Amino acid sequence: MLKPRPAIRNLKEYRPPLAGRTGLRLDFNENTQGVSTRVLEKLRTIDAEQLTRYPEREPVETLIAGFLQLEPEQLLLTNGVDEAIQLLCHTYLDTGDRALVVVPTFAMYELLAASTGAEVIPVPAGSNFCFPLESLLHSLDSRTRLIAIANPNNPTGAVAPSDQLLLLARAAPQAAILIDEAYFEFFGQTVLNEIANLPNLFVARTFSKAYGMAGLRAGILAGPATQIRLLRKAASPYNVNAIALACLPEAMRDHQFVDRYVAEVRHGRARLQNLLADLGIPYWPSQANFVLAQFGGCASQFVAAMAQHNILVRDRSCDYGCAGCVRITLGTTEQMDRVLAVMKSILNELRNRERALA
Amino acid sequence: MLKPRPAIRNLKEYRPPLAGRTGLRLDFNENTQGVSTRVLEKLRTIDAEQLTRYPEREPVETLIAGFLQLEPEQLLLTNGVDEAIQLLCHTYLDTGDRALVVVPTFAMYELLAASTGAEVIPVPAGSNFCFPLESLLHSLDSRTRLIAIANPNNPTGAVAPSDQLLLLARAAPQAAILIDEAYFEFFGQTVLNEIANLPNLFVARTFSKAYGMAGLRAGILAGPATQIRLLRKAASPYNVNAIALACLPEAMRDHQFVDRYVAEVRHGRARLQNLLADLGIPYWPSQANFVLAQFGGCASQFVAAMAQHNILVRDRSCDYGCAGCVRITLGTTEQMDRVLAVMKSILNELRNRERALA
Repeated sequence: MLKPRPAIRNLKEYRPPLAGRTGLRLDFNENTQGVSTRVLEKLRTIDAEQLTRYPEREPVETLIAGFLQLEPEQLLLTNGVDEAIQLLCHTYLDTGDRALVVVPTFAMYELLAASTGAEVIPVPAGSNFCFPLESLLHSLDSRTRLIAIANPNNPTGAVAPSDQLLLLARAAPQAAILIDEAYFEFFGQTVLNEIANLPNLFVARTFSKAYGMAGLRAGILAGPATQIRLLRKAASPYNVNAIALACLPEAMRDHQFVDRYVAEVRHGRARLQNLLADLGIPYWPSQANFVLAQFGGCASQFVAAMAQHNILVRDRSCDYGCAGCVRITLGTTEQMDRVLAVMKSILNELRNRERALA
Repeated sequence: MLKPRPAIRNLKEYRPPLAGRTGLRLDFNENTQGVSTRVLEKLRTIDAEQLTRYPEREPVETLIAGFLQLEPEQLLLTNGVDEAIQLLCHTYLDTGDRALVVVPTFAMYELLAASTGAEVIPVPAGSNFCFPLESLLHSLDSRTRLIAIANPNNPTGAVAPSDQLLLLARAAPQAAILIDEAYFEFFGQTVLNEIANLPNLFVARTFSKAYGMAGLRAGILAGPATQIRLLRKAASPYNVNAIALACLPEAMRDHQFVDRYVAEVRHGRARLQNLLADLGIPYWPSQANFVLAQFGGCASQFVAAMAQHNILVRDRSCDYGCAGCVRITLGTTEQMDRVLAVMKSILNELRNRERALA
């Protein structure tokens, strides 16, 4: 009988609700505006030859490294950040090792770490989902070989101060420290420039969020050159597709597109947070392109009512410590006008119904 | 100090010669004609939304399964066949396990199997690179957990009879048997329809060869539903990019494009093999879209001379048992007219030089 490794047999399933996503998609933290016109123009130039050839990743890595003021040896392009996480787990984790993950957070850290056979230690976030530095330091031991931290965190929008992240990296030289900066652009703070100073610090970036290219699958893994060299060996030379490779430099060159979109998202974030405060709905101040709010017992009703108005938001009740929580991705100013109006009317109605029942 | 797992530290590097590939590319077994016009037309319809959304793999899997007369549960789309191999290795192999690989063959089996910590046992092909069934059967033991076989094989073009593959699969129920049919279309024989009958048989197909879509990164892994379910859990839900997903059904619908191209390749294969026979250059009869030939001491001179005529072919001297061997991808009839003429003139010149020196 063919048996998988026990770690695979016991793996949880991650099935994001991808089917039937029509309407305003505020459920996956995608860019709600689209992509840079420069990317679309580049896409129009793709010819049969580019589809037919095996993709050549390295020249694009050199370009992207330049944009980020890194050496090409410090950077690996990946098939989305998912592959970056997978490569880190595969390279550093073995049965008997431990991975630390702050919860709640992005599901793939736990899933991919567990798939190696390592033990995943969930470290609960502090009050108001604050970064649990003390708990992380207490959880460290010689078996700790990976620590994955999303900063800003998903689904909470909370952030960790850079000095705490660096302190953690110094305290655990035996572990790979992944700071997943998928939402960096909406926050503005980074530890990317510390890579040269710390031999165990990795930073991930993505083209799926601010750049609006989730469909193209491209992530960046930056880290110490000696470690990136090893990760590169374990990756397929053809892991990133040719169209992503053609479009990435155009996306990075169009600062304006990202800057303008980020400004709109930040404006929408303030407006949404104000509305939630006005309505007395608890929320967590976010530094990302989404806000997590506490709808309590009516979370699923709220999500369903929003869907009836063709606005998709995501119930995060199943995440650690998130019972009753809904995550709302921020859109453009025009989109937020509608979202806020719809939310107001839905929440008033839900309250009136509650009162009538009381 | 951050240390990778020993299996990663000791990993060989696979760096295919991708840089500066200009001219007629007969070095990577790509489709030399391009892609179906239906694929190009589909590409032209891709809009910002498709770039921006996370890709949805499952509806396309259902379509592709239908084309192959499989159930959707028997099929997983992957980021090229490389990811299919990686998932199989990761799911079934552990330190202490063994993987069997017939050599010479595609480099990624050994590399990805070794990256798990398993021991890779190279089983040399028989005389004239024939399929070494007996040696494989003798190499089996309880630790054998993966057997990877390319059929047709790369770089030899040799094939294994289906009944021998099935016999091997039955003889090793504890192992995952991967039959990599990347070159299936040029051969015509398959064990895909045996998946329902064997609980440990996997078949890989690719869109990178006959379909001409190496840049898009799409592979198919077919296998028993119970096993595919596990592999699906270990894969990222977003492993295949949106443009590949949009184009795959169009590629499969255009039978004519593939049929016509395959017919040209087969015609070119016969012509090239005839020329090699006429010139007294040993070659191995191929069932794929390439021919491996033995140029002995002048292999590198031949490759360089071809490159001067803007025709890229691949020196395979470093592969097991392939010293002096060059692999020549087959092109269209028009391309082969030129290739054969250039080869003739180069080989005559090399011989004249040899005679002058003798």
